[in-house]
Amino acid sequence: MTPGLDDDLVSRVTESFGRQAFMQHIGASLEEVAAGRVVLRLPFDARLTQQNGLFHGGVIATIADVAGGYAGYSLFEAGTDVLTVEFKLNLLAPARGAFLTAHGQVLKSGRTLTICALKVFDHHEAGERLCAAGQQTLIKLK
Amino acid sequence: MTPGLDDDLVSRVTESFGRQAFMQHIGASLEEVAAGRVVLRLPFDARLTQQNGLFHGGVIATIADVAGGYAGYSLFEAGTDVLTVEFKLNLLAPARGAFLTAHGQVLKSGRTLTICALKVFDHHEAGERLCAAGQQTLIKLK
Amino acid sequence: MTPGLDDDLVSRVTESFGRQAFMQHIGASLEEVAAGRVVLRLPFDARLTQQNGLFHGGVIATIADVAGGYAGYSLFEAGTDVLTVEFKLNLLAPARGAFLTAHGQVLKSGRTLTICALKVFDHHEAGERLCAAGQQTLIKLK
Amino acid sequence: MTPGLDDDLVSRVTESFGRQAFMQHIGASLEEVAAGRVVLRLPFDARLTQQNGLFHGGVIATIADVAGGYAGYSLFEAGTDVLTVEFKLNLLAPARGAFLTAHGQVLKSGRTLTICALKVFDHHEAGERLCAAGQQTLIKLK
Repeated sequence: MTPGLDDDLVSRVTESFGRQAFMQHIGASLEEVAAGRVVLRLPFDARLTQQNGLFHGGVIATIADVAGGYAGYSLFEAGTDVLTVEFKLNLLAPARGAFLTAHGQVLKSGRTLTICALKVFDHHEAGERLCAAGQQTLIKLK
Repeated sequence: MTPGLDDDLVSRVTESFGRQAFMQHIGASLEEVAAGRVVLRLPFDARLTQQNGLFHGGVIATIADVAGGYAGYSLFEAGTDVLTVEFKLNLLAPARGAFLTAHGQVLKSGRTLTICALKVFDHHEAGERLCAAGQQTLIKLK
Repeated sequence: MTPGLDDDLVSRVTESFGRQAFMQHIGASLEEVAAGRVVLRLPFDARLTQQNGLFHGGVIATIADVAGGYAGYSLFEAGTDVLTVEFKLNLLAPARGAFLTAHGQVLKSGRTLTICALKVFDHHEAGERLCAAGQQTLIKLK
Repeated sequence: MTPGLDDDLVSRVTESFGRQAFMQHIGASLEEVAAGRVVLRLPFDARLTQQNGLFHGGVIATIADVAGGYAGYSLFEAGTDVLTVEFKLNLLAPARGAFLTAHGQVLKSGRTLTICALKVFDHHEAGERLCAAGQQTLIKLK
């Protein structure tokens, strides 16, 4: 966890993330939580693959959506909740390697709606590579 | 499986689907396979939930993407493969109940690209409800 | 204009549409206004073309966005306004012929957000053809 | 025009842009052409507005789509053409002021498909502001 952050922001995100059973089921964890920016990490597991043994597109979409959702949520007031209104994702390259990271970054935080940029990278010996990019609309629930 | 279909189409889709380890990991199965149309079914499981116990948005996106992908693939020639170029999904209502169905329907099947409509319904005592709708671009790989 | 409709709904949509200077600039008109459904019509004009003399993609996007926006607005209360949050559009076929129609249809009308399906057809001697399809998120402003 | 660029790239983009009648109809011009990056400029004109006198969303979508299309096209070989497969755009803030700029930037340039990031800014005394952001898929035609 990045040091020096608003504890409340980090603990709110961490607490909500911890209640997402599906994150445990796929093995994703929070790698970075900052104001308006969240990074997830997902190690490779053969149970997460599509027909050719690559990371499944649904897995990539899942961690992208969650990274963006918590990036938005990190800027919300206590006592609110976040829902994804919609997202769009381009799969740019086959995702393989030891692990993925998903990066959610707030582009615009409004009173009701928040818009985030989504990026997913795969990581292998040859380095990291952008394998998906997208954009997401979130709504704040009071 | 719908009777009277081209066996080859059904067996090609079924075979490829069977190699998607992630479908087993979440418990999704093929409910219907027709030319240009595929329906998946996913029973509720507490491991598939988000922070409030509803079906996770990533799960919904996953089965929508797969239903569309195989709807497109059902129209491809033998020896080809399918990749998702991109998709966009609106989450319209909280997804709960005994099971979900995801419906992929080809809107346009071109030489290289195929466009599909995606719909996900949740199913409970009160009936079924549209809980997500989207659109997807696929590419045929030779 | 479709007969037998709620006059208020039709007059609210017609009045707002009439204030969109850009609709006049491209020559678009309202063809149908119903509760949750609006159709625009746009005749061909050489000033509306892209580099190969087809209807420009931006023109297609414009009428799709407006048809959806007023489909949503038709269900809003008096005194509200509508803004497009986002939309996604696939261009499925080259758009040519005497005129285009753009069809906006509400998929889900919520308290704050409304989701619409967008379709654009071109019309020529050979008949009509779906040349674009998309999905849109609207917000109601009070 | 940025100095020192590959003349051929700039002249190919400029020539194709010059054939888009709709760009003249709205008054848009090329502000910058580089390898994988194109910027358009569009001065305010009352004919380009929506019901409240702001730049129309369709105008914003048009220049975003064109900026991305030529950003992709700038990397294509001579003798090819470009078509938009699809794009998604979030409208982030009301667009007003003396002029807009639309920025297309290639994220991934593949053999067949190219993915671009789209951004539109409005410009007024108070400075510039991001008023739309999106993502686009292009196809190379041979």
